[in-house]
Amino acid sequence: MNFMNQAFILANKALEHDDVPIGAVIVKNSKIIARGENRVQKSKNPTLHAEIVAINKACKKLNSKFLDNCDLYVTLEPCGMCATAISLARIKNVYFAARDIKGGAILYNAKIYDNDKHLWQPNVYEMTEYSEQSAQMLKQFFVKLRKLS
Amino acid sequence: MNFMNQAFILANKALEHDDVPIGAVIVKNSKIIARGENRVQKSKNPTLHAEIVAINKACKKLNSKFLDNCDLYVTLEPCGMCATAISLARIKNVYFAARDIKGGAILYNAKIYDNDKHLWQPNVYEMTEYSEQSAQMLKQFFVKLRKLS
Repeated sequence: MNFMNQAFILANKALEHDDVPIGAVIVKNSKIIARGENRVQKSKNPTLHAEIVAINKACKKLNSKFLDNCDLYVTLEPCGMCATAISLARIKNVYFAARDIKGGAILYNAKIYDNDKHLWQPNVYEMTEYSEQSAQMLKQFFVKLRKLS
Repeated sequence: MNFMNQAFILANKALEHDDVPIGAVIVKNSKIIARGENRVQKSKNPTLHAEIVAINKACKKLNSKFLDNCDLYVTLEPCGMCATAISLARIKNVYFAARDIKGGAILYNAKIYDNDKHLWQPNVYEMTEYSEQSAQMLKQFFVKLRKLS
């Protein structure tokens, strides 16, 4: 199974409830154990980013606060909240599609993993082959949003 | 009402379910609109820090993803997850008791608000008169934990 494609399916699900299209899946032993789509608008809760939704579900499923040997696939570079949550959950590998110059906190801004060596350090992989797909999806969303407002 | 004392009451509540004693309250128009205690162990969810629990409740209560003109009182310096969530929720003022050299992300480590100027910038106040109370509470918790293990 192509896990990043599954994350994109979740990003499309976010669009259905007028949320910024971002999706995430958590994988263990080559199987998806949790899926999350951005639910900030739907739930009127700024903490419910795709990654947090997926982490919440995975912890419930595994009945554990640590997601040992789990990987996370997400369509956009995580923000500071999600990057820290990923560490707190001890996720092993993080794969992301597009960079996020304004909101990202791995390559940009707070650079969580570079600047906080007390945190669990996941391996981070930028899947550049999916960057354009994610960036276009987000761009279209914001163009449409501006036309509506 | 002394809001930091109320946050300490929540920190004590966290102790009841063997969680690290950290508590938070969210205040609007001089009234507490949400309370949160650390529930990581209780819920087996690493994202349920006191601040996140309080933000979740406040958003539900106000039916809004933005906590305009709300203040947060917390017994420990927020981590990177919580500091970012505080910004995403647009909390106005943050009051904390003890500094957290290892886990804190305001004065230490990722220094979220210093390093990410794209984020909403809350005013942050260190209430040094409560630092020792919080630090002692945490110290006692970890001493007891080590004795048990």
